[in-house]
Amino acid sequence: MRWIRFEDMGEAVYGIVEGDMVQPVRGDPFEGFEEHGEPRAFGGIKLLVPVVPKVFYAAGLNYIDHIMEVAAKNGREPNIPSEADVGYRANNALIAHSENIVIPVDATERVEYEAELVVVIGKKAKNLTEANALDCVLGYTIGNDMSERTWQGQDRTLWRAKNTDTFKPMGPWIETDAKLEDMETIVRVNGEETIRFTTAKMLFSVQTFLARMSKYIELQPGDVVWMGTEGSSPQVRHGDVIEIDITGIGTLTNPVVREGN
Amino acid sequence: MRWIRFEDMGEAVYGIVEGDMVQPVRGDPFEGFEEHGEPRAFGGIKLLVPVVPKVFYAAGLNYIDHIMEVAAKNGREPNIPSEADVGYRANNALIAHSENIVIPVDATERVEYEAELVVVIGKKAKNLTEANALDCVLGYTIGNDMSERTWQGQDRTLWRAKNTDTFKPMGPWIETDAKLEDMETIVRVNGEETIRFTTAKMLFSVQTFLARMSKYIELQPGDVVWMGTEGSSPQVRHGDVIEIDITGIGTLTNPVVREGN
Repeated sequence: MRWIRFEDMGEAVYGIVEGDMVQPVRGDPFEGFEEHGEPRAFGGIKLLVPVVPKVFYAAGLNYIDHIMEVAAKNGREPNIPSEADVGYRANNALIAHSENIVIPVDATERVEYEAELVVVIGKKAKNLTEANALDCVLGYTIGNDMSERTWQGQDRTLWRAKNTDTFKPMGPWIETDAKLEDMETIVRVNGEETIRFTTAKMLFSVQTFLARMSKYIELQPGDVVWMGTEGSSPQVRHGDVIEIDITGIGTLTNPVVREGN
Repeated sequence: MRWIRFEDMGEAVYGIVEGDMVQPVRGDPFEGFEEHGEPRAFGGIKLLVPVVPKVFYAAGLNYIDHIMEVAAKNGREPNIPSEADVGYRANNALIAHSENIVIPVDATERVEYEAELVVVIGKKAKNLTEANALDCVLGYTIGNDMSERTWQGQDRTLWRAKNTDTFKPMGPWIETDAKLEDMETIVRVNGEETIRFTTAKMLFSVQTFLARMSKYIELQPGDVVWMGTEGSSPQVRHGDVIEIDITGIGTLTNPVVREGN
């Protein structure tokens, strides 16, 4: 099943995608829903981020090549995490599929994408095991963890390097039938492929993260966990269009603009 | 004006405290409200956290004695921030006034409080100046940034050190008439005063933080910014009761229990 969240007369509404059509619902995929209103054409719809989470979790460093390449670029020893210690991103930065990523006027040229699988939690969960961890997952979507690397290196926290408004595209929808083991992540900038990797080849798996997190934290319906990225990114510029494909989910596309252009 | 959020027949409702009574409203202090229903006795009410923020900001290190004492305890050079780089906490950890702080069974004895002023944003704000920064503030409440210091030192992020469920008491209410310059913060453990400090004697003021943050981030109604703490805390234990007073706001009180006791 493919869930979208869209704007309907100024309100955020959930709908189920069926081919080229969308069946709107009353309620949501987390607390319950019923079909409500006439199906409409997918093409005429303004997509919203598929969920605004109660908590926005991010694995951070979770793929080996990414860790090695980041270290090499910065002339540092690679920092390979010893445990699945989750971090955070911030809701202000979320934008939907097709919305503009806006680079602040004073950002440096070192602005990069990070293509990430996003796990969407479907129900409350505490003390999960790796064996049952995926039972609380509603489905998957795609995230782009846009990063300004100069600020990331200089600032005490990641607040503006990663959480500047528009720096967290997420979407286009939540796919409930995608299988982790079948996923490949492919990024294209202006139509040209820049990286391709096996999505599940993580340092710590989705199951490992959810099991460890839920020992101290009750996961909530609508929470999202961004699973980290592989490799490195070229610098992206005003006028670029970034597309992230993940097999079985879909494609998240966002144009890049620089403030003042 | 003193705003509470409370449970009314299973729903979260806002109300205005007037002496010993509460006037419930329809709506909220952010988007608009009207009085709705009969006033009721404050004493019979179950308080909720005064707001669940869209983004939960935290200044982190923002008082000199705290920075020096933390450094001395850990045998490190003091890490004095050069800019007002804001950090984050997580909504899962929020609990209301009078609810239990629950220390996980595998936490060490190094569990401490941090008494903090909480700024509650009342309206959207971008590109604030220090001169007009407080115009977007609805009022103030009190936060207790409970911390497990061993995890804080060991883990890659602060996820369980600071964001374990129940580790973020916030309340009891939002006070809109309190004045920053009049505030003193006083903490008592089991009725005995453990620290007292001038709330506004921060490294970076509320105005400095809001002006810097809003250069990259549009602040939203209901966002909260926890302003950091002064000094250090004794270790708190099962059975302790922590009270935090801030002049003009009120008192946030929470008992401490350890899981398995």
